[in-house]
Amino acid sequence: MADTYVLVHGAWHTGAELEPVARELRAAGHTVLCPTLAGNRPDDDRARIGLADAVTSLVDFVEAEDLKQVRLVGHSYGGMVISGAAARLLPRLARMVYVNAFVPLPGECLNDIVPPHYKGLFDAVAADNGNAVMLPFEIWRDAFINDADLELAQAAYAKLNPHPYGTFTEPIALEHPLAALTVGKSYLNCVLDTALPASLPWHPRLSERLGLFRYVECVGSHEAWFTQPVALAGAIIEAGRD
Amino acid sequence: MADTYVLVHGAWHTGAELEPVARELRAAGHTVLCPTLAGNRPDDDRARIGLADAVTSLVDFVEAEDLKQVRLVGHSYGGMVISGAAARLLPRLARMVYVNAFVPLPGECLNDIVPPHYKGLFDAVAADNGNAVMLPFEIWRDAFINDADLELAQAAYAKLNPHPYGTFTEPIALEHPLAALTVGKSYLNCVLDTALPASLPWHPRLSERLGLFRYVECVGSHEAWFTQPVALAGAIIEAGRD
Amino acid sequence: MADTYVLVHGAWHTGAELEPVARELRAAGHTVLCPTLAGNRPDDDRARIGLADAVTSLVDFVEAEDLKQVRLVGHSYGGMVISGAAARLLPRLARMVYVNAFVPLPGECLNDIVPPHYKGLFDAVAADNGNAVMLPFEIWRDAFINDADLELAQAAYAKLNPHPYGTFTEPIALEHPLAALTVGKSYLNCVLDTALPASLPWHPRLSERLGLFRYVECVGSHEAWFTQPVALAGAIIEAGRD
Repeated sequence: MADTYVLVHGAWHTGAELEPVARELRAAGHTVLCPTLAGNRPDDDRARIGLADAVTSLVDFVEAEDLKQVRLVGHSYGGMVISGAAARLLPRLARMVYVNAFVPLPGECLNDIVPPHYKGLFDAVAADNGNAVMLPFEIWRDAFINDADLELAQAAYAKLNPHPYGTFTEPIALEHPLAALTVGKSYLNCVLDTALPASLPWHPRLSERLGLFRYVECVGSHEAWFTQPVALAGAIIEAGRD
Repeated sequence: MADTYVLVHGAWHTGAELEPVARELRAAGHTVLCPTLAGNRPDDDRARIGLADAVTSLVDFVEAEDLKQVRLVGHSYGGMVISGAAARLLPRLARMVYVNAFVPLPGECLNDIVPPHYKGLFDAVAADNGNAVMLPFEIWRDAFINDADLELAQAAYAKLNPHPYGTFTEPIALEHPLAALTVGKSYLNCVLDTALPASLPWHPRLSERLGLFRYVECVGSHEAWFTQPVALAGAIIEAGRD
Repeated sequence: MADTYVLVHGAWHTGAELEPVARELRAAGHTVLCPTLAGNRPDDDRARIGLADAVTSLVDFVEAEDLKQVRLVGHSYGGMVISGAAARLLPRLARMVYVNAFVPLPGECLNDIVPPHYKGLFDAVAADNGNAVMLPFEIWRDAFINDADLELAQAAYAKLNPHPYGTFTEPIALEHPLAALTVGKSYLNCVLDTALPASLPWHPRLSERLGLFRYVECVGSHEAWFTQPVALAGAIIEAGRD
């Protein structure tokens, strides 16, 4: 069964970092696209771009490509973006897949869903960097890519780009909770993910906001895209198939 | 070591669906029986059968076969049935094994242990079907057999039979909590099981009711009997051995 | 990269029981030492030895060997001991690794961190045995080494030694919480560990006391040193590397 996947990256990433997983999915016969959202492109004005801009850039991409029966896969912050795009893309959607991704309630922004110490850190970094945020390497290495060796942790970190903080602070425009969305939904949980602390976890805290959903697990950390691309591709297929 | 296992199926199932796992256990040298409980046989009157009837059918089976040193394995609803049978079969028991199974407190019925939205759904379905309940396919596919592909999900669903709702609503007759039962106990948890939500989980919510117990994990969903028979058989041996 | 590991055993154990894992680490090119703490040596006076004695014996060992850039790995009760030694050994430390280990707050003793039923059991056993405690075999078999077969469970149990209860009741001397320690920290969680109940778990209850930490998982029970030495050695490397 040849399905169509659109993989939506997280904060600090672009579509290029998802290519190792995309290649595995293509090798299994699927069509896979990895757009880079507004705000993470080289020349984007990080001081001004907000969540609605990123959502619109995804909607525009899917419509411009005229994609049908799309499996829309969002990672981390990408969960905010696919959530915002879902209602506008509904006739084109086959399934929504959240990969350790945020599932907002109507009116929430990303900062409402993360631990207070992240918000404090981001506020300070953004104030000093023209409203763009970066992740300190020590947090990246031990809490985001804990399953990598130091060399891979450094190489992956070098690929990240400053992220427009407006996409974390702007509330999402949602008419209804995601649970009410009339399309199949899956939550894929990488079991070593500690980007969110265990006291405010991805699953089940955020997955249960989907209502009826299919639960899939994968080895690896929050950055399994770098550390476990083959396993993650297999898990995305288990999450994305009918 | 050749042990004797009695595998007790869950709601909507019969012993026949446990045969792929039973075959693996037999290949490892064990004696395995898979009775079908009263209420799930073709000609049983689903409008009248309750939990005590199912329990008695299991006790009668073990006594008629004159089994000794039995490893009594209950899956899901089968946990209610082995719990009810344990005191009556105690001299014949070597160990109790709960496989993502209900562990009732004295006086509880199955409906007391499931989320309210399941009870609401079951009430409505039973009222329309002569007190027999079925599981909607969309719940089966995404929450019960989430690790199958669509073809296996459909083929397994076709084997299910209407379940007598009286076995969910009749309180169990237990003199003492299971924790007081003087026989070894194990809880086997299939880690992808989302038949119960994470907020009201199988483990540790129900496993800890056993007092001292041996914890074993297995890959797969609530329906690992269909999706992971080899792994599940191996885990049953780890759970059931001395 | 050849690193230096010091593996610190848990209660009832000596360094000898960690040798199968140490051998794997050495085969990967690392230097590994497995001292036996004061209190668990054959001629130690179990009636008198307390936590400070065990801590000092570890500090003395590392200093006598003049070890540098040490990866200090503590298992279970060994977490109390490495926690107490950390500040005194700080210039010699590269990283702290807790393997299903206790992470005390300043002023806590081990008994403050375990379930009340363990404390009650230990109090009674120690009172009858000159302030030394042993673990009843039935608890060892089902809650500590649940992934072993009976033969291995018995053979491993035969290697245990009576443990000085003063190391469980003496509060730790810590000036600052471990979270304030300026060295990398990892928590390694064996996923079948039920030595602590799920309601008072190792992770995240104790791991989060480390502040920023690297999370690593391993197959196996609390006694993976016996049941999964190869996997545990691999996980220790993932936890201990830079």
